[in-house]
Amino acid sequence: MSLFFSVIPVAEAIRILTSAAVPAGTEEISLANGLNRVLAEDVTSDGDIPGFTRSVVDGYAVRAADTTGAGDAVPSMLRWTGSVPMGGVPDRAVAPGECLYVPTGAVLPPGADAVVMVEHAEQAKELVLVRRPVAAGENVLARGEDFPRGGMVLPKGRRLRPQDLGVLAASGKSRVRVFRQPRVGVISTGNELVPVTAVPSASQVRDANSSLCAGFLQEHGCVPRCYGIVRDEQEMLRAALDRALSECDAVLVSGGSSKDARDHCAAAIAEQGEVLAHGIALQPGKPTILGRMQGKPVIGLPGHPASAYIVLRALVRPLIGVMAGGLPPERRLGAHLGDSIPSPRGREDWVRVQVEGGLARPVFGKSGLLNTLAASDGVVVVPAEREGMEAGEAVEVILW
Amino acid sequence: MSLFFSVIPVAEAIRILTSAAVPAGTEEISLANGLNRVLAEDVTSDGDIPGFTRSVVDGYAVRAADTTGAGDAVPSMLRWTGSVPMGGVPDRAVAPGECLYVPTGAVLPPGADAVVMVEHAEQAKELVLVRRPVAAGENVLARGEDFPRGGMVLPKGRRLRPQDLGVLAASGKSRVRVFRQPRVGVISTGNELVPVTAVPSASQVRDANSSLCAGFLQEHGCVPRCYGIVRDEQEMLRAALDRALSECDAVLVSGGSSKDARDHCAAAIAEQGEVLAHGIALQPGKPTILGRMQGKPVIGLPGHPASAYIVLRALVRPLIGVMAGGLPPERRLGAHLGDSIPSPRGREDWVRVQVEGGLARPVFGKSGLLNTLAASDGVVVVPAEREGMEAGEAVEVILW
Repeated sequence: MSLFFSVIPVAEAIRILTSAAVPAGTEEISLANGLNRVLAEDVTSDGDIPGFTRSVVDGYAVRAADTTGAGDAVPSMLRWTGSVPMGGVPDRAVAPGECLYVPTGAVLPPGADAVVMVEHAEQAKELVLVRRPVAAGENVLARGEDFPRGGMVLPKGRRLRPQDLGVLAASGKSRVRVFRQPRVGVISTGNELVPVTAVPSASQVRDANSSLCAGFLQEHGCVPRCYGIVRDEQEMLRAALDRALSECDAVLVSGGSSKDARDHCAAAIAEQGEVLAHGIALQPGKPTILGRMQGKPVIGLPGHPASAYIVLRALVRPLIGVMAGGLPPERRLGAHLGDSIPSPRGREDWVRVQVEGGLARPVFGKSGLLNTLAASDGVVVVPAEREGMEAGEAVEVILW
Repeated sequence: MSLFFSVIPVAEAIRILTSAAVPAGTEEISLANGLNRVLAEDVTSDGDIPGFTRSVVDGYAVRAADTTGAGDAVPSMLRWTGSVPMGGVPDRAVAPGECLYVPTGAVLPPGADAVVMVEHAEQAKELVLVRRPVAAGENVLARGEDFPRGGMVLPKGRRLRPQDLGVLAASGKSRVRVFRQPRVGVISTGNELVPVTAVPSASQVRDANSSLCAGFLQEHGCVPRCYGIVRDEQEMLRAALDRALSECDAVLVSGGSSKDARDHCAAAIAEQGEVLAHGIALQPGKPTILGRMQGKPVIGLPGHPASAYIVLRALVRPLIGVMAGGLPPERRLGAHLGDSIPSPRGREDWVRVQVEGGLARPVFGKSGLLNTLAASDGVVVVPAEREGMEAGEAVEVILW
C-alpha cells in the first residue's frame, strides 16, 4: 500500500459501491409496522373506494334538477320523506319533488344525484325549503371516485408516510409487502478504544463511532448490529469480518485512522475479497476503503468521527438506497454563505455549517473533534469542479 | 350544540391545547435506543475529552522550535528515537533535536508540542529530515479540546441525531435520561366503519383514520394505542374514552364527520370533562373539538381523512411538542405557486400541493378523498389575514 492515495471521484465511488450492493429482499409485514417502510410492490385497489356513492356533508339528498333557480326569495319546496342512517342502506328512493336527510358519509339514496347542505335549507315538519341550487354530483363522493377497483393506490418504491398508511387501510391491505431492512454490521477497530461503559486510561478514548454508525443506520431504515471493538490486527479483524458477513448484508469497519490501521483493514478485505477503491476525492473522508467480501459491500470508514459521518452521508447513504429500496428524504435549506470556503479543484468538500437567519457559517475544525459535528446544523457541498465558494454566495444546505 | 360553529383562530387553538398538555415525564434508556429521543437533562462531560493530547495525523512528534525554517532545500534534521504505540503510553520524552513516530490518535509524547506529517518528512534509519516547519499545537488535539471536564456536551431538549449519539458515547453516557414517549389513544367512531381486515358492505367503508393517526403519532415520537372502532353513541364513546384515558396521556377521537357524531363526541367529553373549543378557523379542519378529561387533552378530529391529517399537523403537532419535549424537524421548501389560491380572510387555509421544478401546484379536491392526500407532497399555509395567494407568488411548502 503506497503512502499516497490514488483517489477516485465521489461519483465513481458511489457507482462502485452501489454496483456492489445486493437488494435486501422483501418481506410481508403488518400495516401497523409500516411507517417509513418501502413498498416492494404496486398496491392496487381490491374494489371501488368508496364502495358506494356517499354524501360529504350533512344535508338533503335531492334531484339536482329540483333545485334549479332556488334562492332566498323563491326557495325550492321539497317533501321530506325520511333520513338515511349512518352505516345503513336507504329504505327508499328520492322521487321528483322529494328529499331524504343524509348525514356526512352516509349512502346517497337512489334517485338522488346531489346533496343540499343543511345550512342552505330549512325544514318545517315534512317540508324542506332549499335556498340554493345544487348541480348534479355536488357534495357527493361518487363510488370509486377515490380509487376505482384495480386502480393504482400506491406505487412500488413508496416510502410509507402516515397518510399512505391510511390509504392502504382503506384498500384493505392489513399486511403489505415491503423491502426488508438491511442488516448492517458495525466493527470498531483501534487499540486505543474502550467501550462506552469503561473509564479510559491516559492513552485511551471511548468508542464514539459505533454509536454514530448505529444511529445513522437506524435513521436510514437499516438494522445495525454492533460487533464491538476489535484490535488493529489483521487476524482479529478477519475473524470479526467473517462473523459480521455471516449475519449481515453489508459491514462498516470504523475506527482506524492511522496508515497502519487502514492497511490492516485493506489487507483483511483483500485477503478473502477485493478492495474496490482506497482513497476518495472527498474531504473529509479521503482514506475511505471500498471493498467486497462474499458478495457483500464492506466499507472501511475513516476513524475521525466527523470524517466517518461525512462518508456515511456521502457514500453509505446511496448504498443503503439500493439495498433498502428507498431512503428517508433529506432536509435541504437555501441559505447564503457566511464565510468563504477555499477548496482545491478536483476534490468534493463537505463543509459543516451552522445556519442562522438565512446565513450558513462554515464550522471549521479538526475532523477528530466531535463538538463541531454536534454543533453543526448540516453541510454545504463544494463540488469537485469548483475552487471554493465565496462569502454571500447562494448555497443549498443539507440539514441533519 | 348550535348548527353554526363559533370558531377560534388557529393560534388560540394551539394555545388552549398546549396549555392542556401535561409533559410525559422522563425515563432513563440505553444509548443504543437513543435515536430521535429528546434529552431531558443537560449532559456534561465527566472528564476531559480527549483525556490526553493526541496526534491527529501519522507523523513525527517534535518540538516545533526544532523545525523553524525547515524546507526542501534545508530540511531540519532530527534524531528518531522510537515510536508511540496505539493505545499505549510513550516510553520516553522528546528532547531537543529528537523526534518520535506517532500514529494518528496516539498519545503525544512529553516534550513534543506538534506533529510533522509523515508526508512532509523523510526517514533514513535513525535520521528524520523535516521539510516543512510546524507551529506549536499543529496536527495535535489537546487534552480537553473537544469537551473539557464539566463542559456542556449536549443541552436538555436536544433531539438526538446520530452524531449526538457519538458525542454521548465519547462522554461515557451509556444510559441517558430522555422524555418519555407520550402514549396517545386513538378511537375511531362511525357506524359506517369496518376494520381494515373486513370486506365492507354496500354502506360501509374501512377505517383509514386509525392507521393515519397511528402513523402520525409514531412519526412524532409518540406511542399510539388504537382502541378500534366505536359506534356513534355517547354511551359507547364514553366507555372507550374511560379506557383510553386510564392508559394514555392524551386521546384522539377520529371518525365522526356528521353533526350528530360531533355532538356525541362533544357531549361525551363535556359529561366528565370540559369542551375547550368546538370549531377552529382552519380549512380543512373546522369541526375540530378540543377538550380535557381527567386532566388530559382529548381531541375530536374531523372524520374526513384529509381534514384529520391537517388537524394533526396544525394542532396536534404542537401539542406533542409540549408533551414529548421536542419534535422531529419539518422539511420545508421554497417554491412558487402554480395556481392562485382563493381563501376568505379570517380563516387559515392549509392547501395540499404537488411540487415539481420549483412550482407548487395546489391539489384541490374534496377532503373526503384519500387520493389527493397520498398524491400531495406537502401543504402551503394561507394565513388568516390573507385573502388568498396569487399564482407565481413565492411560498414555503411544508413537505410531508
